[in-house]
Amino acid sequence: MSNLSKLRKKSFQLLEGDIYQSLIAKHINSLLIALILANVAAVIIESDCDISRQYSTQFALFEIISVFIFSIEYLVRVWACIEGKRFKHHSSLEARLRYMISPIAVIDLIAIAPFFISFFIMIDLRYLRLLRVLRLLKLMHYFKGFNIFLTVIVKELKNIAAAIMVMMFLIVIAASLMYTLESEAQPEVFGNILHSLWWAVVTMTTVGYGDVTPVTILGKVVATIIMLIGVGLVALPTAMLAARFGEELRERKRNLDAEVKDVLSDGLIDGDEYRELKEITEKLELRPEDLEETITFLKKGPYGGKCPHCGKYPLARKKLPTKE
Amino acid sequence: MSNLSKLRKKSFQLLEGDIYQSLIAKHINSLLIALILANVAAVIIESDCDISRQYSTQFALFEIISVFIFSIEYLVRVWACIEGKRFKHHSSLEARLRYMISPIAVIDLIAIAPFFISFFIMIDLRYLRLLRVLRLLKLMHYFKGFNIFLTVIVKELKNIAAAIMVMMFLIVIAASLMYTLESEAQPEVFGNILHSLWWAVVTMTTVGYGDVTPVTILGKVVATIIMLIGVGLVALPTAMLAARFGEELRERKRNLDAEVKDVLSDGLIDGDEYRELKEITEKLELRPEDLEETITFLKKGPYGGKCPHCGKYPLARKKLPTKE
Amino acid sequence: MSNLSKLRKKSFQLLEGDIYQSLIAKHINSLLIALILANVAAVIIESDCDISRQYSTQFALFEIISVFIFSIEYLVRVWACIEGKRFKHHSSLEARLRYMISPIAVIDLIAIAPFFISFFIMIDLRYLRLLRVLRLLKLMHYFKGFNIFLTVIVKELKNIAAAIMVMMFLIVIAASLMYTLESEAQPEVFGNILHSLWWAVVTMTTVGYGDVTPVTILGKVVATIIMLIGVGLVALPTAMLAARFGEELRERKRNLDAEVKDVLSDGLIDGDEYRELKEITEKLELRPEDLEETITFLKKGPYGGKCPHCGKYPLARKKLPTKE
Amino acid sequence: MSNLSKLRKKSFQLLEGDIYQSLIAKHINSLLIALILANVAAVIIESDCDISRQYSTQFALFEIISVFIFSIEYLVRVWACIEGKRFKHHSSLEARLRYMISPIAVIDLIAIAPFFISFFIMIDLRYLRLLRVLRLLKLMHYFKGFNIFLTVIVKELKNIAAAIMVMMFLIVIAASLMYTLESEAQPEVFGNILHSLWWAVVTMTTVGYGDVTPVTILGKVVATIIMLIGVGLVALPTAMLAARFGEELRERKRNLDAEVKDVLSDGLIDGDEYRELKEITEKLELRPEDLEETITFLKKGPYGGKCPHCGKYPLARKKLPTKE
Repeated sequence: MSNLSKLRKKSFQLLEGDIYQSLIAKHINSLLIALILANVAAVIIESDCDISRQYSTQFALFEIISVFIFSIEYLVRVWACIEGKRFKHHSSLEARLRYMISPIAVIDLIAIAPFFISFFIMIDLRYLRLLRVLRLLKLMHYFKGFNIFLTVIVKELKNIAAAIMVMMFLIVIAASLMYTLESEAQPEVFGNILHSLWWAVVTMTTVGYGDVTPVTILGKVVATIIMLIGVGLVALPTAMLAARFGEELRERKRNLDAEVKDVLSDGLIDGDEYRELKEITEKLELRPEDLEETITFLKKGPYGGKCPHCGKYPLARKKLPTKE
Repeated sequence: MSNLSKLRKKSFQLLEGDIYQSLIAKHINSLLIALILANVAAVIIESDCDISRQYSTQFALFEIISVFIFSIEYLVRVWACIEGKRFKHHSSLEARLRYMISPIAVIDLIAIAPFFISFFIMIDLRYLRLLRVLRLLKLMHYFKGFNIFLTVIVKELKNIAAAIMVMMFLIVIAASLMYTLESEAQPEVFGNILHSLWWAVVTMTTVGYGDVTPVTILGKVVATIIMLIGVGLVALPTAMLAARFGEELRERKRNLDAEVKDVLSDGLIDGDEYRELKEITEKLELRPEDLEETITFLKKGPYGGKCPHCGKYPLARKKLPTKE
Repeated sequence: MSNLSKLRKKSFQLLEGDIYQSLIAKHINSLLIALILANVAAVIIESDCDISRQYSTQFALFEIISVFIFSIEYLVRVWACIEGKRFKHHSSLEARLRYMISPIAVIDLIAIAPFFISFFIMIDLRYLRLLRVLRLLKLMHYFKGFNIFLTVIVKELKNIAAAIMVMMFLIVIAASLMYTLESEAQPEVFGNILHSLWWAVVTMTTVGYGDVTPVTILGKVVATIIMLIGVGLVALPTAMLAARFGEELRERKRNLDAEVKDVLSDGLIDGDEYRELKEITEKLELRPEDLEETITFLKKGPYGGKCPHCGKYPLARKKLPTKE
Repeated sequence: MSNLSKLRKKSFQLLEGDIYQSLIAKHINSLLIALILANVAAVIIESDCDISRQYSTQFALFEIISVFIFSIEYLVRVWACIEGKRFKHHSSLEARLRYMISPIAVIDLIAIAPFFISFFIMIDLRYLRLLRVLRLLKLMHYFKGFNIFLTVIVKELKNIAAAIMVMMFLIVIAASLMYTLESEAQPEVFGNILHSLWWAVVTMTTVGYGDVTPVTILGKVVATIIMLIGVGLVALPTAMLAARFGEELRERKRNLDAEVKDVLSDGLIDGDEYRELKEITEKLELRPEDLEETITFLKKGPYGGKCPHCGKYPLARKKLPTKE
């Protein structure tokens, strides 16, 4: 193994490995997170004309330093990506090209590209700022294996999409109705269906700015019905998600239960078994406390002693009791 | 079987059968969905005076083509409906008349009728537009067997209606109270109870336009109490639905569990059994993943081996182990 | 039994008994409900000055007839109340006095008293109207044994009160903070803490009228934090209620399960047992469908056949199989 | 034990012990709670200029009395704190110093300190009022062992924080987008990203004041998408909390079940066992009714009689039946 490939492996571990593995990895990643947040803060503050004019040099300097660091980060990531497991069957070039078109690498590129492009093409300052705020998306590097709830949301995307579709359905019907009823009385805000769509969305999400409100009696009666339905619709996705979250949690606990019961079938948990259970707990995205509670609970119950019927360890299988 | 009746059977399968059955059915139905959406988009855009004036010919042409296609669709559906199972005990004429008064056929008729009626009777353009937006309801053809949540909502309709009744109850009391307290200070917006009803609905659904707000001290104190109660009431239907969704999911999983246990009682799942389980899963409106998870889970537990007490397959019944 | 006491018993059954028992009771109660709703509608419409002036005779007549009917209803209820089970250990006079101070009787009295009092004392028209809208509360006669969710809400009243207390706690702190930050910039709307309390309530319930909004930078920053917390707080009671509703449903289903298992221990359900199960289902406020599902489910499982271990009916107790 | 240390022990029990233990403790603590609430009410009312000028003497007197009582309370608490269990391994001085830097003691100090400091340093009246409203936090003395839901919220703090982070993430992106789209049309309200951040927060929490609304077509389209996402995001923490609350309740009931089953293994519950179960119920923060329901339920089931298979008490362990 050459020095270069050692360095590449090291770089990969520092940037893409588990950030809790080494102290240096932790520090480097903390610094990158801080830099991302500082960049976004800078863009927000700089968007104020007075401040931007007064501190223009400082902001420009900070931008150059940031882009420099992000560029190095991007290049190192592209260079070191071939160390990753998912690219081990590809040639170096192919691996790097594949990595470069992955969403997270594109986000990294968007964070730096506008800076270099702006030398050649004039980009409107406001769009440039928007692109720089998108650097916030770089934080996604640090959201790997987030938690159980994201899993459920992804699983339920179809149902959520269906709920949103029903909502849009109702929004279009509501907007057309209000256009029919109010366009004569308020031609400037309900003059066409596009305008009353704005009213419908603002109302059914219960945001209710009040910039557009019905004024005719009939319009108010129909709006009343729409609002009551809107409140119910807002309730729907919550209820759906709550039910699914609950089911998912229950299912995973049941799986953990089964695993612990299996291990406890000889009445003991040895070191290896405990490590294994901990790994399973992590894979199920449950908390370490959940494992402790399950073990405590099952040890007190029939799995902590002998079977009351036959005197044997219940459901005992191939394992022999070992020292804990 | 004559050629005509073959064509009728074919038409029925294309329009009313499972849309995933054949490629042609899929394409025809996709085109119809696209046409419905395009129609609604056209109505929304056309409602803008400037655009409507500029592209009046194009819009008129699109309308004629759409009505033409929808009319053919309607006629074919009426003609072919007698192939459906629910009309097999009726004469052709009776079947078609019964179909024509079914809600979905009425929706199809509403989508085309105004066009033809408008040749004889002058319909206000705004009402015509509303009727054309209702073409969106034609999408209901494609919402058959939607999902588990619709089932629960239909089951819980009584409770939801009760919750809405309680809300209306409180809205009337709140409106009367505010009328009493505010009508002197703001006769133009709280001048009668109908007006303060508007305020009550806007407030209790937490929409809060701000077009009507209390100004007296007492009015604000009472409004504060109403708002706090309103927030609680909005929570009620959500909580009710979440609990029932959860219960329904749990019940269905339990039913699936029981079926899988039954099949696993001989320790094996053969091809026929697996197909049967898949059908049950679909009938219970659960996901295919749910079946896989249940099988994996139960195979690991006592249902995957022999009974530890008596050496027999637990709960073994009439079945003999077969090759999977 | 004299004719009078027969009539009294009849009256009691008609007004207070199960409204589904006899057709006459159903009709009388439907008429009373319709009259209550018509009264409230009349008050709402009458509150409009123009309409009230134009139809003053009709409204007055309707009011006299309504009060006449409600008065008779009240007198009959007081006269017949002694037939009720809860007063069987009291003398007639004591029973009637006790009934007259019960909340529901007071509501009945409030529905008619203002009419008679207004002959002697001048009552402001607006308060009179409010008192007449309260006739809506008479509908409570028909909300007996509502459903499972009311039970949970009553059980959880302590927790809901705690959540509201925490909310009030935060509202007071938020109002004081905003008063400190905004009173200088907007003395007319944040001039004292009472005024900023209005802002805090309108904001934290997410109603957001917009009649009062912070204008200083610091005020907006603090308001942002308050809004994010407010959204979380609104979520709390919903989540609490959803969890408890779910738990209550599960518990009751478990109880029903146990009862059905007990009855099924001899492998059969006879007519008497089925009637008993239906009564238990009703007492548990579950739906008849829940009973059917439980029986179907348990009959398929081990409770539908013999115990696989010992060949006896599982958990069989004193009962003998009887014909269904 | 000297008289002084007896008095100290007594003081400690009165202020820090279970407030339901003695009648005097109950009265003293009720008075302190009343005084705290009266103080906050006084600050709110006093913040009105007219009232404050008219009753300045009364308010000043009330303030002096309050501070006097709170000062005595603070001194007694500091003096008596050494009686507490958590300080029994510290010297008196160390214990008192440790107590004085505990959050609850700091809150007590903040309640009185500003009064004394204001003699030496001029404090702005508005900040002084804010500090006096913070006396409300003294109520935390009486929120010990609140309930099961607080436990869950603390456990879920990480997930709630994650949800808020995702929300902030989207708020920043939304604000930048709207700044890009609207800053030209409305430079005074969308002039910089800080300003549009205000709009984004007000919209995504569904408060919707309406002081800032998009006016361009593109701005409205993007705002529509943001609102629909915002509604979904508000649903997320509720759903998460509901699922976890449900899981926590279920887990605790399961633990209680196991304990009752254990006690019932000999078919009887004697007095000691019942007391023990009540203590466990309290520790699990369940209601006494939950225990009663569990016992009633389990007594009816297999745990109320002998095992149907072997004739022994199911799962019988070391205990012998005793008189209840």
